[in-house]
Amino acid sequence: MTHQKQKSNLEIERKFLVKSTAFKTEAFKQTKIVQGFLSTNKKRTVRVRLKGEQGFLTIKGASSKNGLSRFEWEKEISKTEAEDLLKLCKKGVIDKIRYEVKVENHIFEVDEFFGANKGLIVAEVELQEETETFVKPDWLGKEVTGKIKYYNSQLSSNPFTTWKK
Amino acid sequence: MTHQKQKSNLEIERKFLVKSTAFKTEAFKQTKIVQGFLSTNKKRTVRVRLKGEQGFLTIKGASSKNGLSRFEWEKEISKTEAEDLLKLCKKGVIDKIRYEVKVENHIFEVDEFFGANKGLIVAEVELQEETETFVKPDWLGKEVTGKIKYYNSQLSSNPFTTWKK
Repeated sequence: MTHQKQKSNLEIERKFLVKSTAFKTEAFKQTKIVQGFLSTNKKRTVRVRLKGEQGFLTIKGASSKNGLSRFEWEKEISKTEAEDLLKLCKKGVIDKIRYEVKVENHIFEVDEFFGANKGLIVAEVELQEETETFVKPDWLGKEVTGKIKYYNSQLSSNPFTTWKK
Repeated sequence: MTHQKQKSNLEIERKFLVKSTAFKTEAFKQTKIVQGFLSTNKKRTVRVRLKGEQGFLTIKGASSKNGLSRFEWEKEISKTEAEDLLKLCKKGVIDKIRYEVKVENHIFEVDEFFGANKGLIVAEVELQEETETFVKPDWLGKEVTGKIKYYNSQLSSNPFTTWKK
């Protein structure tokens, strides 16, 4: 096993809708992501992800009451393992491009979705503390932190293009 | 990560009930196992196991039609990771002692269950091919290969002591 990467902790993240594609010219990196779920239960989500040439297995617990933090455990796996495990996943594999954008001291991960979630773009910023402040770029829209329908696990079974507007 | 162990393949196993405790004196090893499930869906079981001082994360696919083979992916994780992930598991953690018994050229894994599954003892033997023959010890009872109620994932939600006899 090379590139062994692993984390096991509480993630603090805020999530926003994105109102323009201006972020694309500011991105320092973009990566294709294909991901599926072995469990979409909100108390124990199990995700298989192929991110460029890397594979990851990620397990998330329930969100805290304010929706800001969530137990997250992640382990890097090989591309082949990820491909094998994606075959076992529930229907509704998610296909997106992740743009990474540095805004002052923070990195925003902006996901542009395709397929059944086409039209949806969301940005997430990871914080060290729940009260941490950060600069909001112009393209950042409404906050949707903790809104379950924007969880990728939910977008898998109830995709954006099927929502009643 | 030390003791990195990993497998990803098709497992061929036959499973039997055990009719006496004679196997205990023949065992060359016994290990306490505590395990829980993040998913008990038969198409995609996700298991967290603490086996002695080692942790394992195991993902199994659906069984073949004859119940003999099943896709299985397993990765060793630390004891602490296993303990953290066990907290996320569904109710019905399984507690058992695994005895390993060598019978001629094969190793039988004999699981004696406790708690809500007390009274149940099952033996499994792993084969290289579905048609492979093996010596059956005297303590081996009825074959239950492919019987879903004997899957540990099912014993977790529908334990042995609650079965109608």
